[in-house]
Amino acid sequence: MEFDKELKAHFLKGHDKYLRHVSVDSVIFGFHENDLKVLLLKAKYGAWSLSGGFILKDEHSDVAAHRVLKERTGLEKIFLQQFNVFSHPARSTKELNQQFLKNIGVKIDKSWMFERFITIGYYALVDFTKVNPTPDKLSEACEWFSIDDLPEMILDHRFIFEEALRALRMQLNFHPVGYNLLATKFTMPELQKLYETILGKKLDRRNFQRKMIATGILKKLEETKKGVAHKAPFYYKFDLPKYKKALKAGMELF
Amino acid sequence: MEFDKELKAHFLKGHDKYLRHVSVDSVIFGFHENDLKVLLLKAKYGAWSLSGGFILKDEHSDVAAHRVLKERTGLEKIFLQQFNVFSHPARSTKELNQQFLKNIGVKIDKSWMFERFITIGYYALVDFTKVNPTPDKLSEACEWFSIDDLPEMILDHRFIFEEALRALRMQLNFHPVGYNLLATKFTMPELQKLYETILGKKLDRRNFQRKMIATGILKKLEETKKGVAHKAPFYYKFDLPKYKKALKAGMELF
Repeated sequence: MEFDKELKAHFLKGHDKYLRHVSVDSVIFGFHENDLKVLLLKAKYGAWSLSGGFILKDEHSDVAAHRVLKERTGLEKIFLQQFNVFSHPARSTKELNQQFLKNIGVKIDKSWMFERFITIGYYALVDFTKVNPTPDKLSEACEWFSIDDLPEMILDHRFIFEEALRALRMQLNFHPVGYNLLATKFTMPELQKLYETILGKKLDRRNFQRKMIATGILKKLEETKKGVAHKAPFYYKFDLPKYKKALKAGMELF
Repeated sequence: MEFDKELKAHFLKGHDKYLRHVSVDSVIFGFHENDLKVLLLKAKYGAWSLSGGFILKDEHSDVAAHRVLKERTGLEKIFLQQFNVFSHPARSTKELNQQFLKNIGVKIDKSWMFERFITIGYYALVDFTKVNPTPDKLSEACEWFSIDDLPEMILDHRFIFEEALRALRMQLNFHPVGYNLLATKFTMPELQKLYETILGKKLDRRNFQRKMIATGILKKLEETKKGVAHKAPFYYKFDLPKYKKALKAGMELF
C-alpha cells in the first residue's frame, strides 16, 4: 500500500523532482574468476535491464549516475566513464511501464514516465567481491551475468552494453585499468588475463609485461605467489598516485 | 517585426516543438593553411559561442546536430562524432537570453529557454574551402578562428572545445582522419602536417609514412606535386571504401 502510493507519486509527480526526457544508464563491469561480468536488474513481471535512473533538477548527470550505482552496489567512488548518448526518438518505456502498472493493478493515464527519454550512457568498473547487488523498488532481482551469456534486455540496452564494451576496449589504450577490477596485489599473468578478457583476444606475454612495466604505474613486491607449480610469479600492486595521474593525463600502452 | 514575432513564439512556445532541457553543441573543425580552425558564432549584442541548437520532439540528437550544422555551413553529410555530455546544473542561458531580450526590447518573463540545459557535445570535421559560414537569426557573425587564438566564449563552451580537441586527438589513434579536412589529393607531408596540427606535436617523418601506408587506406597516384624545389612528393588520395571500413571497425595507427 505504501509502495503503491510512492509509485503513483513517482509516475504523476516525478517530473517536479527530476528532469524530463533525460536519464542515465550504467553498464556495471566486474571481473571474477577470469570472466568479465555485467550487473543487471530484472523488473517485476518484466525483463532484464541495465542499472538506470533519473537526474534531479539540480544534479550533474555524473552525480546522478554515482547515486544510482551506490543504490545498486553499495559502493561509493566507483570508476565511472561517460561514453555515449542514446537518443533514438523511439526510445520510450511507455509500453513497459503501462504493462507493469497493469500487472500490479495501478491505473495511470498520463505520466512523464511514458514520454521519450534520451539516456546518457556510463560504464563502471567495480570490485566484484565488494558489490552487494541490490534490486530497486521496481525490480525483483539484481544479478551478475557473464558478458558471453547475457539475457534478453529491454529497449536498446543490449546495444548500450555493446557500445560500452567497445568504449572500454578503446580506453584500454589510453587509461590504466585494473584498480577497481583486481585484488590489491596481483601477478602479471592475472593482469594480462584481465586485459585479454576485456579485449577478447590473446596478448603476447613478453610484450605485455614490457609495456605494462614501461607505463610506470606498477610496483613490484618482494612477495611471490604461493602454491604455484613452477616458477612462482611476483606480486605487483598499482602505484596509486601514478595510476591516478595516468588516468587524468592518459598514456599510450599498445 | 516579423522577427520579433518569431522570436517571441520561440521563447514562449518552443517547448511544444523541441525537447526541454536538452541541446546539441558542435565544435566545427576545419583545416586551412596548416592551421586548425573552429567555426564560431557571435550573438547579437553578445559573445562568441559554438554552433548549437535544440532537438525536435521526434528527432535523434545526431540528426539535430546535422540539421544545425547544415544551417551554419551549408554542408550535408558532415563527419560528426558525439564525444561527451555537459550537464553541470548551473548550465543555463537564462541571463544571456534575458540580456539579449532586454537589448532588443522584448519582454518575456517565463520561458523554457531560461531553464537548465544538458548539452550533447559533437565535433565535426569539415572541408574549410567548402564552408559558407552562415549566422543564425540570433547571431550577427559566423567566423573561423585559429584554435590558438580563440575569443572569449559563453558558458562552458571553451571547456567543450577543449574536450572536443582531446577526444579528436584520441580518435586519431583509431580512426582515419583527413577525408573531410584535406583536398581530394594530397602529399604525404601535407597529411603529416594535418596530424601534427591536431596532435600539437611533431611526428617522425619515416615512421609516419610507414604507419600510414600500412593502414591500407591510402592510394598512391602517379602524379607528383609541381613547383617543388627538390624531390617532388607524390600525391595520394584516400581509398574511400577502405577508409570507411576503418572508420567503422577502427584501426590502430600509433
